[in-house]
Amino acid sequence: MELFRAKIRDIPNFPQPGILFRDITPLIKDPAALRLAVREILHPFLSRNITVVAGIEARGFIFGSLVAWELGVGFVPLRKPGKLPYIVESISYNLEYGSTNLEVHTDAFSSEDNVLLVDDLLATGGSAKAACNLIERLGATVTACAFVIELDSLKGREQLSNYVIHSLLHY
Amino acid sequence: MELFRAKIRDIPNFPQPGILFRDITPLIKDPAALRLAVREILHPFLSRNITVVAGIEARGFIFGSLVAWELGVGFVPLRKPGKLPYIVESISYNLEYGSTNLEVHTDAFSSEDNVLLVDDLLATGGSAKAACNLIERLGATVTACAFVIELDSLKGREQLSNYVIHSLLHY
Repeated sequence: MELFRAKIRDIPNFPQPGILFRDITPLIKDPAALRLAVREILHPFLSRNITVVAGIEARGFIFGSLVAWELGVGFVPLRKPGKLPYIVESISYNLEYGSTNLEVHTDAFSSEDNVLLVDDLLATGGSAKAACNLIERLGATVTACAFVIELDSLKGREQLSNYVIHSLLHY
Repeated sequence: MELFRAKIRDIPNFPQPGILFRDITPLIKDPAALRLAVREILHPFLSRNITVVAGIEARGFIFGSLVAWELGVGFVPLRKPGKLPYIVESISYNLEYGSTNLEVHTDAFSSEDNVLLVDDLLATGGSAKAACNLIERLGATVTACAFVIELDSLKGREQLSNYVIHSLLHY
């Protein structure tokens, strides 16, 4: 794990004063480190009969599509409001100030789907919980949630107590 | 190419009346079609000594990261304003109404880099041209630009006349 940790850059005071941002761009720029990271992320799920991977816009598209590719399944983007062109299911969730929505095409999943949710970061868990609820509203099963980074002190895992959680790096 | 075309869904009047939107979500949901599409996108560049792939937020992250993965090189995200945490280079470009910026970390490329730019769509070419200029400002070489879909009538290719352009599907 120290190999991956060395590829995460700490940026103080981003996006606002007092926040220490964990920057994954050095990791995705390094093909050998990225390959190992993606394989570690998906390893627990190789025999879990995952049928599709869902990723949250925008950094979740990078890791989600790579995990889907390596598992040999399709990828479904969960997007910010107004981005998806077909009929959408939409869910609201709270941000630090105000709220936003996450959207998915209504035909993105079937009731037979076992979905692996992938995102780069588990912080408070708000967006991941909304994503899981959105997937379940369409009748599919959330088999597990996988993250590159989990910020333990924010207790996002408690929001996702119904699900298997796998994080590559803990801070 | 007809295999891929069958996986692109036409959505009339999105994002505004009179626009026919080409929806790539069925393509990325189908792992066999996606695999063939990604390999067709990167095929002309297998022996071009590409050292890094750049992708434009957000759909370009999906295809860009997969092309980078298959080429065995790193991936650099070109992002909307305010999203990248480290020192950025920023470029403005025109939208239909108003303008926006595209940003990249200043240490994302070196002068030795041969960059393949990947995005899902070549329309008017505004964002792709801005992306190429941004990459060149950091001293790297844009070896080529690859797109899933090119809307021929919008003549985006004319904006990119200095570059090799490869598009999977033409409309």
